[in-house]
Amino acid sequence: MNTRNIIIVSDGTGITAENFAHSLLAQFDINIKDHRVPFIDSVDKAHIAVQKIKDIAANSTNRPIVFTTLVNSEINAVVHACDAGYFIDLFTIFVSPLEAELGMNSNHTSNRLHHNADSVAYRNRIEAINFSLMHDDGQTNKNLDEADVILVGVSRCGKTPTSLYLAMQHGIKAANCPLIPEDFERNRLPSSLDGFRHKLFGLSIEPQRLSEIRNERRAGSKYAALENCRYEVNEAEKLMKRHGISWASSTHKSIEEIATTILQEINIPDKEHVI
Amino acid sequence: MNTRNIIIVSDGTGITAENFAHSLLAQFDINIKDHRVPFIDSVDKAHIAVQKIKDIAANSTNRPIVFTTLVNSEINAVVHACDAGYFIDLFTIFVSPLEAELGMNSNHTSNRLHHNADSVAYRNRIEAINFSLMHDDGQTNKNLDEADVILVGVSRCGKTPTSLYLAMQHGIKAANCPLIPEDFERNRLPSSLDGFRHKLFGLSIEPQRLSEIRNERRAGSKYAALENCRYEVNEAEKLMKRHGISWASSTHKSIEEIATTILQEINIPDKEHVI
Repeated sequence: MNTRNIIIVSDGTGITAENFAHSLLAQFDINIKDHRVPFIDSVDKAHIAVQKIKDIAANSTNRPIVFTTLVNSEINAVVHACDAGYFIDLFTIFVSPLEAELGMNSNHTSNRLHHNADSVAYRNRIEAINFSLMHDDGQTNKNLDEADVILVGVSRCGKTPTSLYLAMQHGIKAANCPLIPEDFERNRLPSSLDGFRHKLFGLSIEPQRLSEIRNERRAGSKYAALENCRYEVNEAEKLMKRHGISWASSTHKSIEEIATTILQEINIPDKEHVI
Repeated sequence: MNTRNIIIVSDGTGITAENFAHSLLAQFDINIKDHRVPFIDSVDKAHIAVQKIKDIAANSTNRPIVFTTLVNSEINAVVHACDAGYFIDLFTIFVSPLEAELGMNSNHTSNRLHHNADSVAYRNRIEAINFSLMHDDGQTNKNLDEADVILVGVSRCGKTPTSLYLAMQHGIKAANCPLIPEDFERNRLPSSLDGFRHKLFGLSIEPQRLSEIRNERRAGSKYAALENCRYEVNEAEKLMKRHGISWASSTHKSIEEIATTILQEINIPDKEHVI
């Protein structure tokens, strides 16, 4: 398959632009090689960026595709004057229509987004990450009433990465608590969850996939055996069904997809949103 | 300040589009209220999305701004036929130029991106998250040779969220290890880091900010006292300088910015990148 060099030139980290470029290019049958050229926030740095584009182009069969998100028009002009790549300006194209619709001029200020470390929203995200870490795997019940959501499910079904993603991307305080054989024998939810039924969301997984994942950790154990995985998943789903807990399967769903599903299902109060 | 309703209509999670829309709108002095309408992957769901747009519009002073990333042209047409919002198509506008440049047609396949839970890249990300969690705060030295980077710095300077972000966004195995008073007294790096000098990256922080953060955890303690924070930060920076370890300050930098700086400084082998 064709491999193309992709260059992201940004006045910030370029992470948002990179993710966006990936989703555009996912529509084509090509392999890509990524190059990110971040923090281009002065004319001097713009000239350095141009040199990088030329260096990459010199080592490519096809010209590289350069995605830019440069708010300052002078810096943008320097980069776009380079003829060593195929340029796609992800920003400018949308700014004029938005100015017309909003009835105001844009600030042309670089990098004023959720990456601002001094904003309330940013500090809330960091607090959510700390909360989710502290409440990973039912480690503590302290302040569980502060949780926006509590994920439940069998060991290794994906609760931890999903909780951390919810915290990191959405600033949501996501605790998680395993459902273990003792709960199935007692045929009830862990007592630490009493009073929090409205915050619970379940994760499940196909037994076959669970067994594979557990075998990576503890090969040949009873814990990882397919039969035991079948038993645990079945019991966990019965328990969730009985308590009216919605759940999603992580077998073929990414943490982004599970998180989005959770946000649709659970009623999470609006977070302060200052961009 | 003006508040505008923003609606993201996507055939996938809409997370990439939402981040992108935020960075565009960050150029304007407005408050926004977000609405995400994900998983619109059929004509039926497109009609449901249209109804949601109408409902939001009915409760707005100004018409909502609707950002769409719908790859399927039939679904896209249904949504864009709605006249209750101001529509910005984030996708179609770039597809034709890319088709011309790449000399091929796009797949028009929705949602084929890094969120694909069955891809190698996705499993590497999850493995990196597990690695980073297991190697948080110097918990274990096991398999430390597998780390792509090891962050060092005083307690509460931001190592944990940065490590998790590196893993989650970039699939990088990021361990972290605290520098503690005992290290300063011995005047050397923790012995567990012997042999890994080339993987080390430092984080530092202004003592004033560190003291604030520590006081949230342990108010009035010696650990949180400004004088002690000054001592620790100063000793840690001396130690890093002496060992030629690059470092960044987390005082005004977000985890995205720190992660980007680390990727520029540290030589991390290319990750398999299949989109």
